Amino acid sequence: MPKEKAPSFNLKTPKGTKDWSGSDALLRDRIFTTIADVFKRHGGTALDTPVFELREILAGKYGEDSKLIYDLQDQGGELCSLRYDLTVPFARWLAMNPDVRSMKRYHIAKVYRRDQPAVSKGRMREFYQCDFDIAGSFDPMVPDAEVLKIVTEVFEELGWKGRYSIKINHRKILDGIFEVCGVPTEKIRPISSAVDKLDKMPWADVRKEMVDEKGLDGAVADRIETYVMHKGSRELLDRLLTDEVLTANASAKAGLDEMTLLMDYLDAFGVLDRISFDLSLARGLDYYTGVIYEVVTEGSAPPAQTGAPDAQKVQKSGKKDKSKSGNLEDDDRSNDPTLGVGSVAAGGRYDNLVGMFLPKAQIPCVGVSFGVDRIFSITKARIEREKSAEALRSSEVDVFVMAFGGKGFNGMLKERMNVCKTLWEAGVKAEFSYKLKPKLPQQFKAAEQGGVPFAAILGEDELAAGKVRIKEMGLEEGHPEKEGVLVDLASLPEEVKARVAKKRAQANVSDVTQQMEGLKTDA
Amino acid sequence: MPKEKAPSFNLKTPKGTKDWSGSDALLRDRIFTTIADVFKRHGGTALDTPVFELREILAGKYGEDSKLIYDLQDQGGELCSLRYDLTVPFARWLAMNPDVRSMKRYHIAKVYRRDQPAVSKGRMREFYQCDFDIAGSFDPMVPDAEVLKIVTEVFEELGWKGRYSIKINHRKILDGIFEVCGVPTEKIRPISSAVDKLDKMPWADVRKEMVDEKGLDGAVADRIETYVMHKGSRELLDRLLTDEVLTANASAKAGLDEMTLLMDYLDAFGVLDRISFDLSLARGLDYYTGVIYEVVTEGSAPPAQTGAPDAQKVQKSGKKDKSKSGNLEDDDRSNDPTLGVGSVAAGGRYDNLVGMFLPKAQIPCVGVSFGVDRIFSITKARIEREKSAEALRSSEVDVFVMAFGGKGFNGMLKERMNVCKTLWEAGVKAEFSYKLKPKLPQQFKAAEQGGVPFAAILGEDELAAGKVRIKEMGLEEGHPEKEGVLVDLASLPEEVKARVAKKRAQANVSDVTQQMEGLKTDA
Repeated sequence: MPKEKAPSFNLKTPKGTKDWSGSDALLRDRIFTTIADVFKRHGGTALDTPVFELREILAGKYGEDSKLIYDLQDQGGELCSLRYDLTVPFARWLAMNPDVRSMKRYHIAKVYRRDQPAVSKGRMREFYQCDFDIAGSFDPMVPDAEVLKIVTEVFEELGWKGRYSIKINHRKILDGIFEVCGVPTEKIRPISSAVDKLDKMPWADVRKEMVDEKGLDGAVADRIETYVMHKGSRELLDRLLTDEVLTANASAKAGLDEMTLLMDYLDAFGVLDRISFDLSLARGLDYYTGVIYEVVTEGSAPPAQTGAPDAQKVQKSGKKDKSKSGNLEDDDRSNDPTLGVGSVAAGGRYDNLVGMFLPKAQIPCVGVSFGVDRIFSITKARIEREKSAEALRSSEVDVFVMAFGGKGFNGMLKERMNVCKTLWEAGVKAEFSYKLKPKLPQQFKAAEQGGVPFAAILGEDELAAGKVRIKEMGLEEGHPEKEGVLVDLASLPEEVKARVAKKRAQANVSDVTQQMEGLKTDA
Repeated sequence: MPKEKAPSFNLKTPKGTKDWSGSDALLRDRIFTTIADVFKRHGGTALDTPVFELREILAGKYGEDSKLIYDLQDQGGELCSLRYDLTVPFARWLAMNPDVRSMKRYHIAKVYRRDQPAVSKGRMREFYQCDFDIAGSFDPMVPDAEVLKIVTEVFEELGWKGRYSIKINHRKILDGIFEVCGVPTEKIRPISSAVDKLDKMPWADVRKEMVDEKGLDGAVADRIETYVMHKGSRELLDRLLTDEVLTANASAKAGLDEMTLLMDYLDAFGVLDRISFDLSLARGLDYYTGVIYEVVTEGSAPPAQTGAPDAQKVQKSGKKDKSKSGNLEDDDRSNDPTLGVGSVAAGGRYDNLVGMFLPKAQIPCVGVSFGVDRIFSITKARIEREKSAEALRSSEVDVFVMAFGGKGFNGMLKERMNVCKTLWEAGVKAEFSYKLKPKLPQQFKAAEQGGVPFAAILGEDELAAGKVRIKEMGLEEGHPEKEGVLVDLASLPEEVKARVAKKRAQANVSDVTQQMEGLKTDA
């Protein structure tokens, strides 16, 4: 070792980035496929934009977060930056394609944020977003309802039924509340940002930020509290509609009417029960103009923290808050199992973003973005918790083609190649050893390590008689097929396919697809 | 218009990049899926690396082309650059994961080259590569043969059977030839680069470059010509093996022996007929150490140029060359339909690259990279040429759910939503109009524009009776089902599925999948 020259560089990925390989890559790929299938089922078409944009396209879109944008070095020519999200490139595309007046588009791709990374929490500098957006002028709330329906389908296909909740609110309702509570116009966005922190800190702290940091009158803050601590469903909406002060405000009234429509449509889609109308949801980004939403899940908390200690802490602060504000039962945040847990998807309506690129191309949009890295972590933790006996496989090979022989055995390499050829051509996933004369135990070990479920074993005599042995891996001693079954070489592809299908049909969770299927039926 | 303020920026993508949308995005996606399916069938596992690497990881890997690397701006912290290919990140990953001694990995992702773009020729600054590589120490040429088998499967699944050819050569043979011809050691790589241009320029020009620019002795160049103008198959190999001068050279002998093995294995895989042993193939990149290959296709030439004029030009220069060198019949480049056509896939063996990152982790590798953008252009041109009557669809929606009614018709929005919900839940791709009260012709127009094959039409009376009408779009007047068929609402998903399946089974080419299938069977 002392003789070897150490490489003169760090052998690592850049800060906040990581490689994805093996079963992790496979599981994440399944999540992408699941999400994309839902998008396509709703008529989504794919859009792919460059990973970098002209710097001026991104300028002025992200407020304070603009400092997190990665710039490309000026090497002559245009100044470019890595994209920060998929929404602004979509708006840029719409502005560039004025013949497209409406579109359902999906985009699954990486985005870049030069943030302080927190790998354990899944906050990376390079991460995937899966976006679905509907652009176009339509009757109010119809596309908004379909986007929320899509959200429910994605999480239900991922096996999260009953384990997630969609918090919704409306920017116009929120702005109306701030107006009737007496927030000065120029303070509405900063106060809105403070309210948005209610999922991470108690009201007392949020009030402190409003009054001490943002200079809001304490009485105004107290009036805000009587609204934003509420959450519920249609009955909360109905109650707000009887609030004469609120409904006298034009913005609030418009928001409440849209929310009424939306709930009607969500009911028609059969998903109203997944929705929590949450007046404290505000969302950070400036460009939202209508309904906003965030998906939270109990599962997004690490297993160790879902238990007593954290719950108690939450309970306490919740009680304190309630004693101060509480005039409603259903908005008790202390019972919210999702408190403190980050969102796994989020979105809303943004009617003015396309107009920022081309005033005459004003196209209203509504959409959602799924945070796949966090969805991945939660799904993987569940698979490991619930199916811990089974290791995750990294490839999907069905059969390992082996050979054995006695003294003078030549390894039968070309015969193994030929059998693999036949299997591949029949669409069977197959591997063989790259050794000229591999020993049989070596070949079994390779198949075992790869988690390959079947072996096709060539012997000289059997092959001469046009036969080959299929053996299921991992059968116990005494199993009738422990030694395998001789089949005709010509029917090998069909024999393998039939066995693979049979094994899949059994309650088998040895691959990721089935593990995800398992989660679905367990839920 | 004069009133509107023009945006203060260019509404475009950065130079050398483009957006992918609609049917182009869908066709490219199909190509990815086709390629990835082949990779998985051979036991490939996915690896995903960050789009940027530490700058020092890329340094010294690409020779002169290093100037084409995109750097990220120094915003504090590490210095990074966008990846130039997927091979160096794979080698970096192998060096970082010393417990992995062998692996079949695939990677489909974008790479970045700050080259002068030529959009019409498909040379972009951001483009996709689809890579498959086998890492590990194995018996010679076995994984190499499987990589070439994979190449044939990919192009045959893409419908290119009989329309492509794999040129192969071996770095050791080439180096041996240069040695026996008398090329000084330090000139071997530059002379090799000159030889590699023989697919783009006649021998006379290449000789000029060797002698005038690179200072090679003219007699040495003439000896090189007697070798590198040859192409053929096993008989060329056999002839070279009888060349006593050549086989006395250790490098050439080793290369010829490996090539013999490779041809044996390619024969076992049944793909030897797709191979052209081409002694002029040299490949630019420095890191190749063994077999090298490039896939060329007649289809990659623009249709207008496959005809007489270019062929004549080739013929002429070919004849001139032949008259000077020609002692073999089968290597007449003038008959090569692929002359002047860029490659659609390329690769080779690189045994020392991983060692550049970590000397003790020396892992030999062999792989291939598919140029999807060029494959896309050729495939699209073929679809348009052969199936020009059918427009390419951009989404895959099966059924458009509509409603109609008489005076006082309320639009049946919730009923349409509810029917869509049922269809989505059954996995049927469905859309509906986002208008509250859409007119029937509007709805038919939307379905037509989207290329949706079926309409499900709700009428108030039919719905009350639990019925819905299915109508195939685009049926001619007089067709017995022109007015559609009434079916039970409860069986709508099954009825739609059956009709979609039936339509697919017919010789129908209205979607990209089928168009690609069509190409396959046409070939």
